[in-house]
Amino acid sequence: MEVRKKLKQLGKKLVEQAKKGENPNMDVPIRALSNVKYDPKKRMILLGNKSSKRYLFNVAHIKKFLQTTEIAANVKKLLDTGKHVSLRQAFYMMRRTIPGTQIDVVEEQEESNAAVEDLELITGFSREQMHINANKNGAAAGKVIIKDKGDVIDWSKLGSGGWSIPSNTEELQFKKVDAKFVLYMEKAAIWERLHEDKVWDKLKCVIIASQGQATRGIRRLLRRLNEEYKLPIYVLVDNDPWGYYIYSVLKYGSISLAHISDKLAIPNAKLIGLTCDDVEKYQLKKYLIKFKKTDENRIKQLKNYEWFQSKEWQRELKKMKEQKGKVELDALVAKGITFISDEYLPEKIKKKDFLD
Amino acid sequence: MEVRKKLKQLGKKLVEQAKKGENPNMDVPIRALSNVKYDPKKRMILLGNKSSKRYLFNVAHIKKFLQTTEIAANVKKLLDTGKHVSLRQAFYMMRRTIPGTQIDVVEEQEESNAAVEDLELITGFSREQMHINANKNGAAAGKVIIKDKGDVIDWSKLGSGGWSIPSNTEELQFKKVDAKFVLYMEKAAIWERLHEDKVWDKLKCVIIASQGQATRGIRRLLRRLNEEYKLPIYVLVDNDPWGYYIYSVLKYGSISLAHISDKLAIPNAKLIGLTCDDVEKYQLKKYLIKFKKTDENRIKQLKNYEWFQSKEWQRELKKMKEQKGKVELDALVAKGITFISDEYLPEKIKKKDFLD
Repeated sequence: MEVRKKLKQLGKKLVEQAKKGENPNMDVPIRALSNVKYDPKKRMILLGNKSSKRYLFNVAHIKKFLQTTEIAANVKKLLDTGKHVSLRQAFYMMRRTIPGTQIDVVEEQEESNAAVEDLELITGFSREQMHINANKNGAAAGKVIIKDKGDVIDWSKLGSGGWSIPSNTEELQFKKVDAKFVLYMEKAAIWERLHEDKVWDKLKCVIIASQGQATRGIRRLLRRLNEEYKLPIYVLVDNDPWGYYIYSVLKYGSISLAHISDKLAIPNAKLIGLTCDDVEKYQLKKYLIKFKKTDENRIKQLKNYEWFQSKEWQRELKKMKEQKGKVELDALVAKGITFISDEYLPEKIKKKDFLD
Repeated sequence: MEVRKKLKQLGKKLVEQAKKGENPNMDVPIRALSNVKYDPKKRMILLGNKSSKRYLFNVAHIKKFLQTTEIAANVKKLLDTGKHVSLRQAFYMMRRTIPGTQIDVVEEQEESNAAVEDLELITGFSREQMHINANKNGAAAGKVIIKDKGDVIDWSKLGSGGWSIPSNTEELQFKKVDAKFVLYMEKAAIWERLHEDKVWDKLKCVIIASQGQATRGIRRLLRRLNEEYKLPIYVLVDNDPWGYYIYSVLKYGSISLAHISDKLAIPNAKLIGLTCDDVEKYQLKKYLIKFKKTDENRIKQLKNYEWFQSKEWQRELKKMKEQKGKVELDALVAKGITFISDEYLPEKIKKKDFLD
């Protein structure tokens, strides 16, 4: 169903309830930890099916009720004009004073964010589909031709910079995808390394980088390439718990965005490195950066995750703990400027040496 | 002079000194605060002309001497192969153990960074010219056609994403620049707002965003458009001391990069907003976010800067202090989704309402 139709339906229902003299209300799925669980079959962190009713005439509910209808009205405005805003801008759209009072609809962005998430839950559409975007960040290169906002863009012909990934990748169309897999990395400097070495040409792949955690725009882009073109997604991160967590979120989703896992998670994504075995094989122990207490705690947390209970992952995390330090991907440069492009990646891919 | 030639000259001189039985040495300009000052004529923060000699046979100098020659050798390797690395990768290139000892050439990135900066000072070339790049970040759009790495790229035909700005913008060539000015902003979400509203088409300009402080790649890009095409640079930031500091660095340079101000600073850049007068004029006081102590201290610091002593800037900073809070650019959305694009910017530009 189209977003606008869904919103109209929601509004219509509330008006009808009011006309009938009923207490207008809506069903809102519960977003608490108690309603989140890992689904081992789908291999995703998903929201359960508990929900609660939110009433207009209920002192505890009315403010949230108002905020939800306010954001719904604003989303309709965005859809009508074809415009998009950021989460921050959505906050300012909602930040009006209720006429005749001193009360603002929202005072903090947390409130408007929650309203946006509630509307995602109520309508079943992502906030990108409702024209509310998250951060913009990241670059892409490879033999891919897309059409976006009327422009035809060839990702293989964009110089050293690449295509700048927008916050919203819902609407772009793929015209041609000539690649065997996608390499996603958390570091722009590694992307620049691989791009300069033309890895996307030599290994027939797409290279996509964020800067730290992948934005939702990047996650949807990866997911779409995975789903629509059956491209395997290989995740290239530092050998440390934070890199592995980036992999975890990309693959299984996260607790805070559990309600949207079915649109963001990529259960068949694979970790291409840097693993503890790689650290040994390529004699990188010399470049170990000693763990701090926070790193060690993070490893412990990862080890307890339900989705990391396989023999392979338990072994990996045990090894990482025993290693007592992390190794960065950049350290591969010590073996040769283009070692990562000419040896590390081709060998890993040839041997299908992935952690799943 | 070409970088490689300069490096060879440096090496040759050291070898000749050694052959003559002299103590090999090099002149290194001093990078301490005592040797940095604001030049009111050039309107830039510049390094003074104090320098010191660094000797091979001097227990206090030898490690730094070695590090400088090591990075020089590595830069030659980069230039010979046409490859580029990040600062972090340069650190790993240098991180080798001196044969027959337990001593590493560098242990921390601070050391390799300092060596890179010393080499910038000694040779007079920027690290980008020596193929060592900083961060990659930011996007560009507008009626500009560039040539980069053999690709011809039209910044007006890149969909919603735009061109992803590389860490190094030294080598790209401008083929066509059809714009009257450049709008630089610190926030990608504002860039997406202006891009969706086609501001670059309507106002005949180039729009460039970073995410926070501009990278060196972005600063060079702005500087080159300013210098080579005489385009005014208008800086669009939040109404707070941090936004104004971004403007300050872009325009006058910074103390830590004083030695490179003559390549990075843009003395005729102008602040297009958001100013305290804008906050009043557009009734944005409602969206004030109360200053914290750190914000107030930052305003005090800015007020003391030599380059902010004009009547206009002293008035502005005094007003900001009295305002007791900051206002974000995003707040303009409360006046209408496209208010910033349709009213705010056109009016500011028409009236030449800038802070200089």
